[in-house]
Amino acid sequence: MKNLKEKKIKSENIFNGVLLNVKKDMVELPNGKETVREYIVHPGAVVLVAFLPNGNIILERQFRYPAGEIFIELPAGKIDVGENLEDTAKREMAEETGYHPNNLEYMGKLYPGIGYSDEVIYIYKAYDLEKRNISCDDDEFIEIFDVPFQTAYQMVMDGEIVDAKSMIGIIIVKEKLDL
Amino acid sequence: MKNLKEKKIKSENIFNGVLLNVKKDMVELPNGKETVREYIVHPGAVVLVAFLPNGNIILERQFRYPAGEIFIELPAGKIDVGENLEDTAKREMAEETGYHPNNLEYMGKLYPGIGYSDEVIYIYKAYDLEKRNISCDDDEFIEIFDVPFQTAYQMVMDGEIVDAKSMIGIIIVKEKLDL
Repeated sequence: MKNLKEKKIKSENIFNGVLLNVKKDMVELPNGKETVREYIVHPGAVVLVAFLPNGNIILERQFRYPAGEIFIELPAGKIDVGENLEDTAKREMAEETGYHPNNLEYMGKLYPGIGYSDEVIYIYKAYDLEKRNISCDDDEFIEIFDVPFQTAYQMVMDGEIVDAKSMIGIIIVKEKLDL
Repeated sequence: MKNLKEKKIKSENIFNGVLLNVKKDMVELPNGKETVREYIVHPGAVVLVAFLPNGNIILERQFRYPAGEIFIELPAGKIDVGENLEDTAKREMAEETGYHPNNLEYMGKLYPGIGYSDEVIYIYKAYDLEKRNISCDDDEFIEIFDVPFQTAYQMVMDGEIVDAKSMIGIIIVKEKLDL
């Protein structure tokens, strides 16, 4: 295999925002030349394929400002500092859907944007859901609904679900659980 | 359906880098409150599932600085200003692999990171490949190889391919072409 690695020479914080942290590093390329790498530093996230007792899975409609569109997504959310993955999964399920998952099963991971972000998203199957409260937070602006698993899969194939983490979550669960 | 949309109040350029353009907007939420949205403005990209005459597909190994790892990926690249999608696909194939695709077939699209980017990636099947030059550019640091399509699919399922655009490209082509 070729030498492909790049070495950090120096690192600069460009922007520390409410959501985004942007860095700009000077790096040494495998041929000894130097170049600049600009990227997002991200804490990581979880995405959940959450099964109701009737076999339906939970989906969300959410307006996403950067692309200016409403997307259909799986429940998901960022890892808080010091939080383990299963706690993130339980917290995000509760916050976004009002359900507590009594069982979680790890299904794999994905890197959504390796060109300019270090984000990694861990995929979980969530089941034995327990309804703890009905209403989402007033400031979340998420619409929750559920569909049979096969319908969700068809929505991926038909281009109705185009959010990468949701596409992969649904497809990985279909293949691994032979649904 | 609930009102989910957010309206722009004002927009600020935070960073215009070599690769990244970062914006910070003040927006009005559906409940009339205001909040900040920080995001990447991206020109969009294409990803290619490129079939050799023997049925193998082309993969790449590339070091990705933000996550600090070598990833296995499909050929892909950003849309240049004013470029149509098929021209991007042909240019990136030539630059990264040395092959010119005489046929391209649109397979769908994905949004890799809707929380903080407007990037959309268009998926193409590429075939009737014609070898035009053997060597990649010296500054690209990409290692090209090819595997049977089913091997690539298994690499997704086994977690050897964890790059979102590559996972989705391979899976969508498998399903749509019944491979």
